[in-house]
Amino acid sequence: MNLINILDYTGTLAFAISGALTARYKRFDWFGAAVIAFVTAIGGGTLRDVLIGTLPVGWLRHSAYLWLIVLGVVLVLMAGRTLEKMRHTMHLFDTIGIAVFSLIGLEKTLAAGLSMPVAIILGAVSAVFGGVIRDTLCNETPLIFSRDVYATVCLAGGVVYALLLQRGFSSSVAGLLMVGSIILLRVLAIRLRWQLPQA
Amino acid sequence: MNLINILDYTGTLAFAISGALTARYKRFDWFGAAVIAFVTAIGGGTLRDVLIGTLPVGWLRHSAYLWLIVLGVVLVLMAGRTLEKMRHTMHLFDTIGIAVFSLIGLEKTLAAGLSMPVAIILGAVSAVFGGVIRDTLCNETPLIFSRDVYATVCLAGGVVYALLLQRGFSSSVAGLLMVGSIILLRVLAIRLRWQLPQA
Amino acid sequence: MNLINILDYTGTLAFAISGALTARYKRFDWFGAAVIAFVTAIGGGTLRDVLIGTLPVGWLRHSAYLWLIVLGVVLVLMAGRTLEKMRHTMHLFDTIGIAVFSLIGLEKTLAAGLSMPVAIILGAVSAVFGGVIRDTLCNETPLIFSRDVYATVCLAGGVVYALLLQRGFSSSVAGLLMVGSIILLRVLAIRLRWQLPQA
Repeated sequence: MNLINILDYTGTLAFAISGALTARYKRFDWFGAAVIAFVTAIGGGTLRDVLIGTLPVGWLRHSAYLWLIVLGVVLVLMAGRTLEKMRHTMHLFDTIGIAVFSLIGLEKTLAAGLSMPVAIILGAVSAVFGGVIRDTLCNETPLIFSRDVYATVCLAGGVVYALLLQRGFSSSVAGLLMVGSIILLRVLAIRLRWQLPQA
Repeated sequence: MNLINILDYTGTLAFAISGALTARYKRFDWFGAAVIAFVTAIGGGTLRDVLIGTLPVGWLRHSAYLWLIVLGVVLVLMAGRTLEKMRHTMHLFDTIGIAVFSLIGLEKTLAAGLSMPVAIILGAVSAVFGGVIRDTLCNETPLIFSRDVYATVCLAGGVVYALLLQRGFSSSVAGLLMVGSIILLRVLAIRLRWQLPQA
Repeated sequence: MNLINILDYTGTLAFAISGALTARYKRFDWFGAAVIAFVTAIGGGTLRDVLIGTLPVGWLRHSAYLWLIVLGVVLVLMAGRTLEKMRHTMHLFDTIGIAVFSLIGLEKTLAAGLSMPVAIILGAVSAVFGGVIRDTLCNETPLIFSRDVYATVCLAGGVVYALLLQRGFSSSVAGLLMVGSIILLRVLAIRLRWQLPQA
């Protein structure tokens, strides 16, 4: 288990908690909370695996994801109010999540023999589509379509990766700097209230 | 054509009718009714087949499903009011549907070489996700996230199957008892108004 | 690059523009507009490819689609008001789009060894499901479930194709007449305000 694994699991747990908290806010029952936690945590990666065709999708073969999501749901059921108060900490974990999911998505897409522009897009899809499915199932307009630069920083991170690779950096250095730049940009975006213009 | 086949077809027809009735209630046109009947009847199994990677998905290869769904739509178009009054009978068929779909989903997942916990989950997904997609397309918050123990009984049935198999029962006995316990639990759940606590 | 290619690209661009215009109307930001343009343009074909199992899905392997969609988004961002005024021209391109997407979807399904009824259905799915996903992500009830005969003409076009093939016509003649009859029926449907009865 290396650094990427640890960050991947951190992100999965953070996404599961964020999903279960949304379900709690919508007054869903335990089962609804579990479903929303699930789709939030594995929705993006699942869509990527399906589009690429690496089936069965990843979380069916590695039960660690399953138990992490169950853990996230149990935490929200037992300590939902506390977790809601830890909004800033959760936000940080969530940011780690989108950064690592973007990198993993990009590398899996390249490993499947697809082009770099496609890999950058599927990296961002891996990071943000769980949230899109969560919002759609909760009958809300997806947040990322109108709120700050959430998804754009994932695309920017992918461009950083591509540029570094082109200049001869190894994929592990490029990956580390991609994750770092997504976290940095995301924190800056929130602090400085960056917004994309309306269409 | 064995018992499972007959029950599978019964469930498919019941789900198609339930979908077309929802569309009728939402004042969709004939085409909308057909689409909603379709996704209700084959949505769960389709999602399972896609996640596992047994493609083309089942209903593309066995036209019986296609014609059963068309039959369900025609029945609703011709006798929608009567079918709406038969709510209790429809409920029973629907319950048979989720029980059989859970079993078929579980067995197909095991046959694909995946683990028992995953098979239990994909069994429930096969049974209930058609309804989730129906509600999402109808711009409603999915019923199963807040209403009674609809999906939980499918998971419970899967646990029954796993325990029986572990104790040395054959898969056909385990399957029969799984279907029976889902139907029983579902009927009890409605009679006794079982509810999951809110998250 | 033959006629079908040109019409396919025309349809993709028209669908991307229609998606971005919807996002503009919903006041999404640039990123949201790009996502909606994407799912509108490639949603139907993606669903078809996933159901059949021809993965990775088409647009991941042919970057022309990617750049056409980006072009559509840029056009809307730079000249959205003008494009909105060109509603009738856009409608024509959109009609060309559904006609060609239906034909391509039908032929890809047959090429995968599936039956003609399934091919007719997946042809229509290819043509209209991008719009369904667009509306669902925008938190709207999909237009095609209640508005005119949008999807029905795609199915009718597929029936025309099947009948012509049966009578010994070549697949290219059948395809051309399928596209022509979808465009004709669609224009007639709008002019004469054809409506399907409510369910």
